[in-house]
Amino acid sequence: MEKPYVVGIDIGGTNSVFGIVDARGTILCSDSVKTQAYDKVEDYVDAVCAKLLPLIESEGGAEKIKGIGVGAPNGNYYSGTIEFAPNLPWKGVIHLAELFEQRIGIPTALTNDANAAAIGEMTYGAARGMKDFIMITLGTGVGSGIVINGQMVYGHDGFAGELGHTIIRRENGRMCGCGRKGCLETYCSATGVARTAREFLIARSDESLLRNIPAEEISSKDVFDAAEKGDKLAQEIFEFTGHLLGEALADFVAFSSPEAIVLFGGLAKSGDYIMKPVEKALNDNVLNIFKGKAKLLVSELKDSDAAVLGASALGWEVKDLK
Amino acid sequence: MEKPYVVGIDIGGTNSVFGIVDARGTILCSDSVKTQAYDKVEDYVDAVCAKLLPLIESEGGAEKIKGIGVGAPNGNYYSGTIEFAPNLPWKGVIHLAELFEQRIGIPTALTNDANAAAIGEMTYGAARGMKDFIMITLGTGVGSGIVINGQMVYGHDGFAGELGHTIIRRENGRMCGCGRKGCLETYCSATGVARTAREFLIARSDESLLRNIPAEEISSKDVFDAAEKGDKLAQEIFEFTGHLLGEALADFVAFSSPEAIVLFGGLAKSGDYIMKPVEKALNDNVLNIFKGKAKLLVSELKDSDAAVLGASALGWEVKDLK
Repeated sequence: MEKPYVVGIDIGGTNSVFGIVDARGTILCSDSVKTQAYDKVEDYVDAVCAKLLPLIESEGGAEKIKGIGVGAPNGNYYSGTIEFAPNLPWKGVIHLAELFEQRIGIPTALTNDANAAAIGEMTYGAARGMKDFIMITLGTGVGSGIVINGQMVYGHDGFAGELGHTIIRRENGRMCGCGRKGCLETYCSATGVARTAREFLIARSDESLLRNIPAEEISSKDVFDAAEKGDKLAQEIFEFTGHLLGEALADFVAFSSPEAIVLFGGLAKSGDYIMKPVEKALNDNVLNIFKGKAKLLVSELKDSDAAVLGASALGWEVKDLK
Repeated sequence: MEKPYVVGIDIGGTNSVFGIVDARGTILCSDSVKTQAYDKVEDYVDAVCAKLLPLIESEGGAEKIKGIGVGAPNGNYYSGTIEFAPNLPWKGVIHLAELFEQRIGIPTALTNDANAAAIGEMTYGAARGMKDFIMITLGTGVGSGIVINGQMVYGHDGFAGELGHTIIRRENGRMCGCGRKGCLETYCSATGVARTAREFLIARSDESLLRNIPAEEISSKDVFDAAEKGDKLAQEIFEFTGHLLGEALADFVAFSSPEAIVLFGGLAKSGDYIMKPVEKALNDNVLNIFKGKAKLLVSELKDSDAAVLGASALGWEVKDLK
């Protein structure tokens, strides 16, 4: 009999969430640990296992689990390692898939969080049945997962799909955390929206609800709330952001001509404020032969479930242990 | 017994060249017809067959041929059609693979010329054995063929890989034949180099051998010849061109993290004048995790053979007729 479940483990900078998932994308049970509480990765794995193993037992034991999928920042699919992740407590190259596999005895695969999100969308969400699509995650940064010919694109080294770090402004581009300038994520992430708000408020003199908030504290959520209240300047911040994102997406289409682009994350939930300008800029800027072809979709996975579902989807693809 | 040969047909705006090729990439025999001499595609297919069928007979007949590959502008692999090719005499959607297949009785596949070049490089050239690489053809325009996980990237609609039409200058970008502005090919093609030469000559006052040529007649070959004679301005034109190309390649690496980028075409043969600035700009602009990883290679196929070899390589991949 086919094994009916997979385990998904999502490793975030603050929390690690894990759960058992069935083939339809239902999370049967889940739990979490604080990622930062464990300086040694072995202690971390022990802590996850202390909570995860009872969950596995409660669903019928390890023989019911097809595989474990792990989503992690700087995750490398080929080696199952996390490599030099700046926001995690463990330095250097961490063989995390191997550690889980040895400890739990279930085959384990690992990839970065944006790739996990893409596999999740392909398995349970808006990209079900698609063979060619691009997932863009709009969070604190901008991540991406690319699927071509029905396969995840990992590239030669396991790190493909860093579309948040394509340069969209060559001149006077914003400083990026990666050390370069003008990266997509400096404009089209949640932090990018907050930066845009601060720039707009300094450069312009029109009234805005955002002027009631200390500039350094403005978040993309504040911009959304102001836009909802009819604040013109806040709405224009989304237009600016969406326009830049749409321009960038037009170039991504020229690369892999996907059936759809799926947007995920807080910004993608800002509705028409961002989606309309994205769609307009995509259509205005895409090469003629691609016009009207790539669908622009918003993720169908619930925010709270998406990370575990994405990681878990990788569990269906693991090879059995030898 | 395995069939030992394939047929390659390369359809250019002026000439169509075709030949019979063995597994090592040797062109056993070849011939050509004038593409523009046939207003009706059926007459064109007749003319090709009138020369090709005797070649096939001379090598042992159709049973020795595994498949026919066709490289054509605006070629769509999925449908085997040429669609709205501006430089060919046949308008609309032309079912060319089907026409050849019915006429010759050998399974036939078709793709655009840049994709054919990539498959040729993977089968016989610099990308032998590679599963992830990007081919950039620097000709009158800039074409590209992308290979990921050992497969050609055709995209959802068969037209993926239009990297020559990614926008590299958002502001004051050069007008492109596609109707948009700032496309890579307006700078980094042979015509782009000639445009740069004219811009440099107007904007600057330093001496140059290029001033002896009427501005509208300057070609990229003239710029190369001048650079070879030590002309500073000509050398700087290549530096400018190579710099822009290297910046663009850095973004392509962020997409698919290829093992190599293979450059093909006249400009790629301009040696260090262009390759050094390309390599420098690629290394200076690529995201840290990709630094030093993607090899920058020049095609290993002879210019005169490359088109037929590229098309022929597709012949190895066709499925047998039902």
